[in-house]
Amino acid sequence: MRILITGGAGFLGRKLASALLARGTIPGADGASHPITRITLLDIAAAGGLDDPRLVALAGDLADPALLERAFEGGVDSVFHLAAVVSGEAEANFDLGWRVNVDATRALLERCRRLPKPPRFVFTSSCAVFGGKLPERLPDDQALVPQSSYGAQKSVGEFLVHDYTRKGFLDGRSLRLPTVSVRPGKPNKAASSFASGIIREPLAGVAANCPVEPSTRIWLVSPRTVVASLVIAHDAPASAFGASRTINVPGISVTVREMVDALRKVAGDAVADRVTFVRDPVIERIVLTWPRDFDARFGRSLGMGTDADYASIIRQYVEHDMPR
Amino acid sequence: MRILITGGAGFLGRKLASALLARGTIPGADGASHPITRITLLDIAAAGGLDDPRLVALAGDLADPALLERAFEGGVDSVFHLAAVVSGEAEANFDLGWRVNVDATRALLERCRRLPKPPRFVFTSSCAVFGGKLPERLPDDQALVPQSSYGAQKSVGEFLVHDYTRKGFLDGRSLRLPTVSVRPGKPNKAASSFASGIIREPLAGVAANCPVEPSTRIWLVSPRTVVASLVIAHDAPASAFGASRTINVPGISVTVREMVDALRKVAGDAVADRVTFVRDPVIERIVLTWPRDFDARFGRSLGMGTDADYASIIRQYVEHDMPR
Repeated sequence: MRILITGGAGFLGRKLASALLARGTIPGADGASHPITRITLLDIAAAGGLDDPRLVALAGDLADPALLERAFEGGVDSVFHLAAVVSGEAEANFDLGWRVNVDATRALLERCRRLPKPPRFVFTSSCAVFGGKLPERLPDDQALVPQSSYGAQKSVGEFLVHDYTRKGFLDGRSLRLPTVSVRPGKPNKAASSFASGIIREPLAGVAANCPVEPSTRIWLVSPRTVVASLVIAHDAPASAFGASRTINVPGISVTVREMVDALRKVAGDAVADRVTFVRDPVIERIVLTWPRDFDARFGRSLGMGTDADYASIIRQYVEHDMPR
Repeated sequence: MRILITGGAGFLGRKLASALLARGTIPGADGASHPITRITLLDIAAAGGLDDPRLVALAGDLADPALLERAFEGGVDSVFHLAAVVSGEAEANFDLGWRVNVDATRALLERCRRLPKPPRFVFTSSCAVFGGKLPERLPDDQALVPQSSYGAQKSVGEFLVHDYTRKGFLDGRSLRLPTVSVRPGKPNKAASSFASGIIREPLAGVAANCPVEPSTRIWLVSPRTVVASLVIAHDAPASAFGASRTINVPGISVTVREMVDALRKVAGDAVADRVTFVRDPVIERIVLTWPRDFDARFGRSLGMGTDADYASIIRQYVEHDMPR
């Protein structure tokens, strides 16, 4: 089985590839598990440090048709489409966001359509598709009212994936991911970047600012748990889905205050005291439109789990992802 | 004020142009009413029989950039975007539907973005954006789960209009139109074509088949009432809208049986007996995913009205639209 992961050199892409390789097999269109023979990690920059002969790095712009052809050379059985222009950048650069998050997604779907067998296609959407007046806890059938270009683009992606699936061109599944925390590495242009930064930076001895109020509630998932949910979504049989192909991925609902309290519990006062609270109205405006809690019944019915609490998420980061 | 109507040579486009010209003025970005100096009717075929010096016909493919430039020559203050590949055709021709209903819509929005002043932009969406498990009567915030390519494309159009509006590129309003009945002219490739055909054809002495069961409930609006709603949506100040720019347009909920009964009442047994009921599974599969009744609270709060009953809709057709 040949797997393509877009955004494959990123943190989640690499974690997903490792999880798939550790299992060694993946279900195909026939429902039976088959050995994984290749995972192509497609990204702007080539993935480095590949430690498995089944991994292939491919670098370039997803919107480049020639690169897409190379990514599909020799065939593809499953696609995980993680690549995207992140929320803050999509808001700052309207044209780039629509070009990458929608046009490149559509080109990828079109390429899948030309495969001899419809591949499974896992699309990462986002809770940014929601906005406006929201209930405290969102049901699975909450209407989409995005209040950012990123949210609008991810909404469009969901409709594309669903229509390509309905027509039998591929077997799609869209996952609305909670904010993933704690991400290793550097801050990025996502409006949610602080949700990792306020943990990662203090643990590294560096001050970090939280641009939203301590009472702000966020819907979170750890990297390990979200990777497990991506695999579950991929593996679910088509018969598990009803009229929609979209899944609200389970997470936990915590306030920023609770996140910093958990950091204090896990790493001590000196670390937690490195977090400052200076509001950034641009970030805050985006974050406050996001939902804070979900029912996520359908995702849980598929077997998707959640993290026990935020302290366990911090410990997971310290143990597995924090640079030594 | 210069108005552009796409699909302007069609039945609704012409009716809309007449209603606007009869009023003579239209509100601008300043909120004040200004005289209408030009209405450009853009369509595949040139609109004929223009009886007002303010009307201009322009023929060509909306997806042609050169035509779009000509449509915007001399400026545009308001756009009514009615042109679309209809539901049955979009389902039969996947690529055409996405190209016209999404790509051409986006090109039109892009052209509006380049105007010196953001124009008002009225987009006609459809109840085909809904599907799956639906309540008997839909609230305004019902989630979109389209079960046809047409519905998916109209959903994407709504998100585009909303994001262009949010960014200040234009002042958009999307209207989910009920099925318009009675349309004059010939049957078309819309799955809803029969909802006019079973009235129009029998009145013209011709047999007409209804491809769905008599108990099928449909959400309907007359041409005159839907044109009034288009104008109301255009004229509403931006402040009338909340987090969304989409309006479920009010209509009436009637069964096909009630439609034929109304025809019997208005035109007699001989006419009503020309309707046959032979199910067409392709049409039925699409129609049965459509909603049957709406709350439509927001639209009514804007002042949009409904027809008294279906018999009055038939009488409106006989009086104003039926060929003599």
